Amino acid sequence: MRYAITIEYMGANYSGWQRQDGIPTVQETLENKLSEFFQEKITIFASGRTDKGVHALGQVAHFDTAKERNERSIRLGINTLLPEDVRVISCKKVADSFHAQYSALRKTYIYKLYISENISPTRRHTHAQVKPKVDVNQMKEACKLLLGDHDFDGFSSTHKEVKTTNRTIYKAEIAQNGDELTFTIEGSGFLYNMVRVIVGTLVFIGKGKRPLEVINDIFEKKDRTLGGKTFPAEGLYLKDVYYGKEL
Amino acid sequence: MRYAITIEYMGANYSGWQRQDGIPTVQETLENKLSEFFQEKITIFASGRTDKGVHALGQVAHFDTAKERNERSIRLGINTLLPEDVRVISCKKVADSFHAQYSALRKTYIYKLYISENISPTRRHTHAQVKPKVDVNQMKEACKLLLGDHDFDGFSSTHKEVKTTNRTIYKAEIAQNGDELTFTIEGSGFLYNMVRVIVGTLVFIGKGKRPLEVINDIFEKKDRTLGGKTFPAEGLYLKDVYYGKEL
Repeated sequence: MRYAITIEYMGANYSGWQRQDGIPTVQETLENKLSEFFQEKITIFASGRTDKGVHALGQVAHFDTAKERNERSIRLGINTLLPEDVRVISCKKVADSFHAQYSALRKTYIYKLYISENISPTRRHTHAQVKPKVDVNQMKEACKLLLGDHDFDGFSSTHKEVKTTNRTIYKAEIAQNGDELTFTIEGSGFLYNMVRVIVGTLVFIGKGKRPLEVINDIFEKKDRTLGGKTFPAEGLYLKDVYYGKEL
Repeated sequence: MRYAITIEYMGANYSGWQRQDGIPTVQETLENKLSEFFQEKITIFASGRTDKGVHALGQVAHFDTAKERNERSIRLGINTLLPEDVRVISCKKVADSFHAQYSALRKTYIYKLYISENISPTRRHTHAQVKPKVDVNQMKEACKLLLGDHDFDGFSSTHKEVKTTNRTIYKAEIAQNGDELTFTIEGSGFLYNMVRVIVGTLVFIGKGKRPLEVINDIFEKKDRTLGGKTFPAEGLYLKDVYYGKEL
C-alpha cells in the first residue's frame, strides 16, 4: 500500500525536513511515529526538503506499508503520537506510481512579514520583520517581472545539485493587511533558498536599495550578489503542493 | 515625570501581567528593566491585568521617574534590555493626572480562532481551535445582542471584586478569513474572563449547542452556567486602550 500524507508543521523546533543523525528533524519525527503506528519500519519521501526553521502548511510525503489501514484512522492515530508542532492534516491511499517529489507539478510558498520599527513579540516565530518605509506598490510591480519562464540561478544560494536552474513562476503576489505583507509565489519548482532570496530582493526594491529592473539584471547576469539578502526562515511556509489528478 | 508606555507581549511565557513572587510576569519583567534603565526603583501601573497566557498588542502602563529622558531613547533603551517576547512600542510623557487604569475610556480585545479538525501547529500559540461545523452567520447575529449597556455578571467567572457588573459594548464583530475567525470586542471595560466567556458562548451558538436567545437569557438570569465554556488564553489579545485626549 502507498499512502500520501499532507503535513502541517512549525519549523522552529526542527533542523528542517531531512533526517540527520542526532538532530531533531520533521522526517525523523514522522518516520518514528509512523513506524510505531504500523509496527514496521516506515520510510517517507517528501515533495522536497524544507530548511531549518521553515514551516509547512501543506507539505506532502508518501510512504509504503504492508498493512492496509483506513485513511482516517491513520491520520488520527499518527496525530495522537506526534508532538503538537507536527500534524497530519490528511491521509490518502494513492497509486504505486505516485511519488511525492517526482509527481509534483507545482508548489506554492507564502512568506509573511510585518513592517514595524519594533520586533513584534506575538509574531516573532511566524513572521519576519522589516523596518519602514517600504514602497509596496513598487514591490508589486517587481513581482510581475518574476512571472513566466526564467533562469533563477541568480536567485539561489550556491552549491546546487540540480540539472537545470530554469523554473516557471505562475503566480507572484503581495497582499497587504495593516502592517503585514503576505507574499504568495507559485512555481513549477524552487531552487535552494529561492523564495527567501526573491523576498529579500523585493524588499530591497521596496526600500529603494535596488531599482525595479534589478530583477531582469539578475536573470541575465545570474549574479546572486545583485539581489537582496536571504530573508529568515521564520517567515517562510510551504503552503501546498499540486499533483493534478494524482492526489 | 510621568510616562505612558504601550506594550506588546506574547503571553505564553508569563503568568499574566501582575507581579507575583517567584513567578515570571510581564509587570515584573518591565519593572526590572525600567529600574535598570533609570537606575532607580520604578513601579508601573497597567490599564488592567491580563491573565496567564493572554497576549497584548497594545497594553498601556504608566510610571513615574525623577529623571527626564527623551521618549524615543526610553523606548529603544528598554527594548535592548527586554526579552524578545515583550516590546515597548511607544513611549510618551503624560500629565501627572494621567492614570493607565482610571483614565481609560474604552478597551478593545480581539480573539483569534481557526476552524479545523486538526490542531494547527503554526497557530497553536496564537489561536484557539474549534472543530467544524460552525454557523458563523448565527454567531454574527448573536454579536448584535451584546451591543449596548448590559449587566455582564453572567458572562464572567465568579469571585469578582467590582462595584458594578454593568458594562457598555460599543463593538462586537466577527471577521472571517479562510478557516480563521477574528472576534473584535470593544467596551467600556471588561469583567474577569468576560471576553473568553463571550467567545465560548458565541461558539456554542455557532455549533447549535445554544440558541441565539441565550445571550438575553444570560443578561436576565445572570447565570454563568447558561453560556459556553471559557475559551483558552492563547487566542486572546488586549488590542488597545483608548484614553481620548489624555494620551
